[in-house]
Amino acid sequence: MSGNSFGSIFRVTTYGESHGGAVGVVVDGATPGVDLCEADIQCDLDRRRPGQSDVTTPRAETDTVRILSGVFEGKTTGTPILLIIQNRDARPSAYDEIKDLFRPGHADYTYFLKYGIRDYRGSGRASGRETAGRVAAGAIARKLLSRRGITIRAYTKRAAGIECKTIDFDEIERNIVRACDPEAAREIVAKIQAARDEENSVGGIVECRVSGVPAGLGEPVFDKLEADLAKAVMSIGATRGIEFGLGFALADMTGKESNDEMDADGFVSNNCGGVLGGISTGDEIVFRVVFKPTSSIAQPQRTVDKEGAEVICRTEGRHDPSIFPRAVPVVEAMVALVLEDHCKRHAALHA
Amino acid sequence: MSGNSFGSIFRVTTYGESHGGAVGVVVDGATPGVDLCEADIQCDLDRRRPGQSDVTTPRAETDTVRILSGVFEGKTTGTPILLIIQNRDARPSAYDEIKDLFRPGHADYTYFLKYGIRDYRGSGRASGRETAGRVAAGAIARKLLSRRGITIRAYTKRAAGIECKTIDFDEIERNIVRACDPEAAREIVAKIQAARDEENSVGGIVECRVSGVPAGLGEPVFDKLEADLAKAVMSIGATRGIEFGLGFALADMTGKESNDEMDADGFVSNNCGGVLGGISTGDEIVFRVVFKPTSSIAQPQRTVDKEGAEVICRTEGRHDPSIFPRAVPVVEAMVALVLEDHCKRHAALHA
Amino acid sequence: MSGNSFGSIFRVTTYGESHGGAVGVVVDGATPGVDLCEADIQCDLDRRRPGQSDVTTPRAETDTVRILSGVFEGKTTGTPILLIIQNRDARPSAYDEIKDLFRPGHADYTYFLKYGIRDYRGSGRASGRETAGRVAAGAIARKLLSRRGITIRAYTKRAAGIECKTIDFDEIERNIVRACDPEAAREIVAKIQAARDEENSVGGIVECRVSGVPAGLGEPVFDKLEADLAKAVMSIGATRGIEFGLGFALADMTGKESNDEMDADGFVSNNCGGVLGGISTGDEIVFRVVFKPTSSIAQPQRTVDKEGAEVICRTEGRHDPSIFPRAVPVVEAMVALVLEDHCKRHAALHA
Amino acid sequence: MSGNSFGSIFRVTTYGESHGGAVGVVVDGATPGVDLCEADIQCDLDRRRPGQSDVTTPRAETDTVRILSGVFEGKTTGTPILLIIQNRDARPSAYDEIKDLFRPGHADYTYFLKYGIRDYRGSGRASGRETAGRVAAGAIARKLLSRRGITIRAYTKRAAGIECKTIDFDEIERNIVRACDPEAAREIVAKIQAARDEENSVGGIVECRVSGVPAGLGEPVFDKLEADLAKAVMSIGATRGIEFGLGFALADMTGKESNDEMDADGFVSNNCGGVLGGISTGDEIVFRVVFKPTSSIAQPQRTVDKEGAEVICRTEGRHDPSIFPRAVPVVEAMVALVLEDHCKRHAALHA
Repeated sequence: MSGNSFGSIFRVTTYGESHGGAVGVVVDGATPGVDLCEADIQCDLDRRRPGQSDVTTPRAETDTVRILSGVFEGKTTGTPILLIIQNRDARPSAYDEIKDLFRPGHADYTYFLKYGIRDYRGSGRASGRETAGRVAAGAIARKLLSRRGITIRAYTKRAAGIECKTIDFDEIERNIVRACDPEAAREIVAKIQAARDEENSVGGIVECRVSGVPAGLGEPVFDKLEADLAKAVMSIGATRGIEFGLGFALADMTGKESNDEMDADGFVSNNCGGVLGGISTGDEIVFRVVFKPTSSIAQPQRTVDKEGAEVICRTEGRHDPSIFPRAVPVVEAMVALVLEDHCKRHAALHA
Repeated sequence: MSGNSFGSIFRVTTYGESHGGAVGVVVDGATPGVDLCEADIQCDLDRRRPGQSDVTTPRAETDTVRILSGVFEGKTTGTPILLIIQNRDARPSAYDEIKDLFRPGHADYTYFLKYGIRDYRGSGRASGRETAGRVAAGAIARKLLSRRGITIRAYTKRAAGIECKTIDFDEIERNIVRACDPEAAREIVAKIQAARDEENSVGGIVECRVSGVPAGLGEPVFDKLEADLAKAVMSIGATRGIEFGLGFALADMTGKESNDEMDADGFVSNNCGGVLGGISTGDEIVFRVVFKPTSSIAQPQRTVDKEGAEVICRTEGRHDPSIFPRAVPVVEAMVALVLEDHCKRHAALHA
Repeated sequence: MSGNSFGSIFRVTTYGESHGGAVGVVVDGATPGVDLCEADIQCDLDRRRPGQSDVTTPRAETDTVRILSGVFEGKTTGTPILLIIQNRDARPSAYDEIKDLFRPGHADYTYFLKYGIRDYRGSGRASGRETAGRVAAGAIARKLLSRRGITIRAYTKRAAGIECKTIDFDEIERNIVRACDPEAAREIVAKIQAARDEENSVGGIVECRVSGVPAGLGEPVFDKLEADLAKAVMSIGATRGIEFGLGFALADMTGKESNDEMDADGFVSNNCGGVLGGISTGDEIVFRVVFKPTSSIAQPQRTVDKEGAEVICRTEGRHDPSIFPRAVPVVEAMVALVLEDHCKRHAALHA
Repeated sequence: MSGNSFGSIFRVTTYGESHGGAVGVVVDGATPGVDLCEADIQCDLDRRRPGQSDVTTPRAETDTVRILSGVFEGKTTGTPILLIIQNRDARPSAYDEIKDLFRPGHADYTYFLKYGIRDYRGSGRASGRETAGRVAAGAIARKLLSRRGITIRAYTKRAAGIECKTIDFDEIERNIVRACDPEAAREIVAKIQAARDEENSVGGIVECRVSGVPAGLGEPVFDKLEADLAKAVMSIGATRGIEFGLGFALADMTGKESNDEMDADGFVSNNCGGVLGGISTGDEIVFRVVFKPTSSIAQPQRTVDKEGAEVICRTEGRHDPSIFPRAVPVVEAMVALVLEDHCKRHAALHA
């Protein structure tokens, strides 16, 4: 109801502010009797944590996760799993000068108007740091999904005007922008470094492909699989759009061109992106999500303070000149949460 | 859980199949004491119903709505409002020849795999006819939102490769494709008629603008306003993507270009589309949604039957060569459901 | 959220007022592919309908149910099942004289204070007539539960000071008060007739026994099976208490006396009523629920009108001098809704 | 869905096992801008914690609570509040000898059958220790309710066959069994000590009275206030029944005797216990709940082990010979959770 929980049967609730005591998540509804340890979760958190490279924020957080409940003798018990990640490199005082003004592109203004109170330390709850809880929960979902043969891979597809020409899954973790094409990766890195040097930031598109999804997942009519995926992914900060399969290009096409015909071997094409009528077809699920350029830039920008007076804002702090490299594991996590939940929902239907 | 309900406080559940006894909706959580009669609902239904023009299906349904509960002496009572729309021009026998095969682009295959049983009469529950219930519920939501000063307008922005150059709200209901530019409307109509004559169909983009939204709506982190809107709109059949504000164009921009600065008069620009950090800014909410070309085309297409044998499918029936003209009120309805619910959620937070 | 829906996976929403257009229910989440026809539902409705005997209201309603969606060729499709029961013997004008006053023991006062508007015709939504929707939905749940080998039996255990000494399931439908002991039944009938002749009413206790429940149902910690059953049963109008197993007698007992020991054949006793730690033990579930005497009595009673002025109220209308005989199938229905939902929840946990 | 969350708008999720890393709760939906500190919560926890007297368990836990999120500069921010209570006096090895057998009256057998895995250390999740999270969350709810003028008081009404004759709220915290009558309190203490010396335990009845509740709370038809209270209270371990107002005594009464008449000053009596038609009347809410005798007794009892072999069980450990003195604050907490949630639900209805 208050927007901090996600999922219906496999359900997670994240908590925590950027510079508060801790961030994390409660995971409820995990299948009992499944092997689970902190290392299973840490590997995904390491892909999200700050300080990985010079195209991301230098904030130094190890993001070490601890499991405080729900696991006994190395196995899930079916009870809530509390995951906690202490904030270590919190420097709340660094935010003193922005506490009374609203940074452009940030949630400062809207949080203040919504709640009447704002934890201004590093955006508080609106910080990207909240996604650590999502990634931790997503790691558990992935572990459960791996038992079902489902694999989720996201990567940078386009950024700063550079489009990846090839898709090589092995390449993704080899470059610091998590692009699927080594050539494009080099160009994107150069563009980001240039933007950073100009105290600016860049946007990008993350593509996600999910294989091994059985046909039949999704709950029409409102909880269509693409609708739930769209919500999941659009709930990540800085996203501004999502498209499945051929996406917006379909506006200029005909039914004859876009329909996916079938033959004895299954679907002949996958223009729909793996979902028809809100239910998975069994083919690969494919979608792209666009991230706006990071809002935090050091260049001076016009804004107002709490009293409405015009002021010039320079966001110093420790920020990412591009968010999509670290958003890649967050996209994967959100997809994992949706799919594990829908697997359980589908099982419940036929129970 | 089974995907037939939407909303948390203002909550609707649609029911009904295309050629069953009736379609409709139960609306729960409407504010008591508000004037409501069938005419309030009928006007929106008339914009959605089939047979409006020669670019939509000729199926003859009056889509007359009846209120069976929840209204007493012309006012809402706070109890569930059951709306029922009888199916009149149902011709289930017209579907005999497709009952054992899977039409390309349709949900036939996926429904069969999900449920193990399929109401093949006009797509059953997967039919666009289900959206009559959404539009009826949306009309109630709009009535409630009008008390709050919120206005929702959707229109065709692009179709069959033709883009609207101007946005004139008065023009929308003057042309049969509900485009916002009379010039473009004429071209789009011609393209659709040509497609229909070739037994083909076309896709398009619907844009939606919402004015009068107060700052503060939306529930971070998972129920961000754009996330809930994305889910709502992507739950409409045939949608393949959604983008807010500058949308996918942000992938090629910098933070300096895309951030919305503020001055004493408020936001200087609205690149974000009216939502920051998942909460409405008070500016206009703007998004675009793409509809794929209608799947039902009379041209022969390859597919398989239930036994997996290859067959040729020709979808005769009575179908829309373009879906977006009738989808415009459905988009508005889904937005209304989201906003009325979020208004109530916001009130509950501060109660 | 507004209290008109029940269940989480197998979820029902009732609608309708006593003297409005219709009453009924939407059932969502029923397993697809199960045989279902109107006769399956009608038999339970006939046990609840008014006019069965001279110890219940003479209102003449056939309570004929129609299925308008969700069933195709005699089988459930997994989509929402809309059930509708037209109101036929509605006489709203009979309530003109009570429209401005609050009948003692009724919800008139509280509905008016809650909603600010009140459908005074036969209590509107607060009427026992709303339970027709519950019984109809419960009939579907029972059908699904019968596939699992679960049987639910409720009966009058005590009323008007008369306690049943024996429990004979075959006896229940043979007497008009649905008592489990023919001797007690005769005495209870006499007591009710005497009360009716004195323009008074009587209370009673309904006991329910459920057999065939597998061990393992229930979701600790908040959705313990007895907690969900308590809510379900206490949501029936006129209930004032519920107890499981030995119930309130446990206040005077010791752990040695009350613990259910086990031997190689299972539990030696069933003092707990079939639930331990919120999870079914596999033994019979046993509980008792108390119904207060019907509030509607023809004797004059003191009350106030909408302006707060003191008035004398005589509830003429057509009322039940005892509610428990007709409440028996309602109790069974609510138990069925809980159990079918928990069966699906349990399956989802292990999926 | 998995039973670890409670409430719809004001929603809590407890986590933790008796001898795991910690127990606690996430509280979501608290009104922003309200003063809150750890001391506000600690006072209620101190009434629940073990080791308070010689009629409760000697386990030594300080139950010190820490707030890790959702509070900024001493005020709630409207974001999730994570409360954590470390387990200090955990002695998991003490449970080695019961790890393979099922203690009578406990959830050992049912948890094992439900989950296929059991954290046997002090009952794991099924331990009464889980209620620390409820009491902590309840303390926040009480703080919010105090702004509304609502006061909740629970106390021991009857135990070990001794009934309180008077109700003196000031007396409750003066005696170690939290009885409302000093005379009865002395007798009850003596009975418990005798039971403990005989390696036995006793049951009891807790009564709860809520004052200051405005008329209008409760959401018919399924979420009647008494139904939600019944579920809340029956979700506490060891409860076996609940009754409102005159409760089970109504089975032997007539409508004339039991109806609450009204005059110009309001209700003349409160036989219904403060709720009519599922909605609060504005009068005191009154209910009683029965707790079975503590299952853990040192006397030898028959049971079986995991292989089904018969064994004799002696529950050594550190246990409460009576649970109701420590259950009093738990009952109050659950009532507070229900009422704060319903206050917000009511506000949302009229928003």
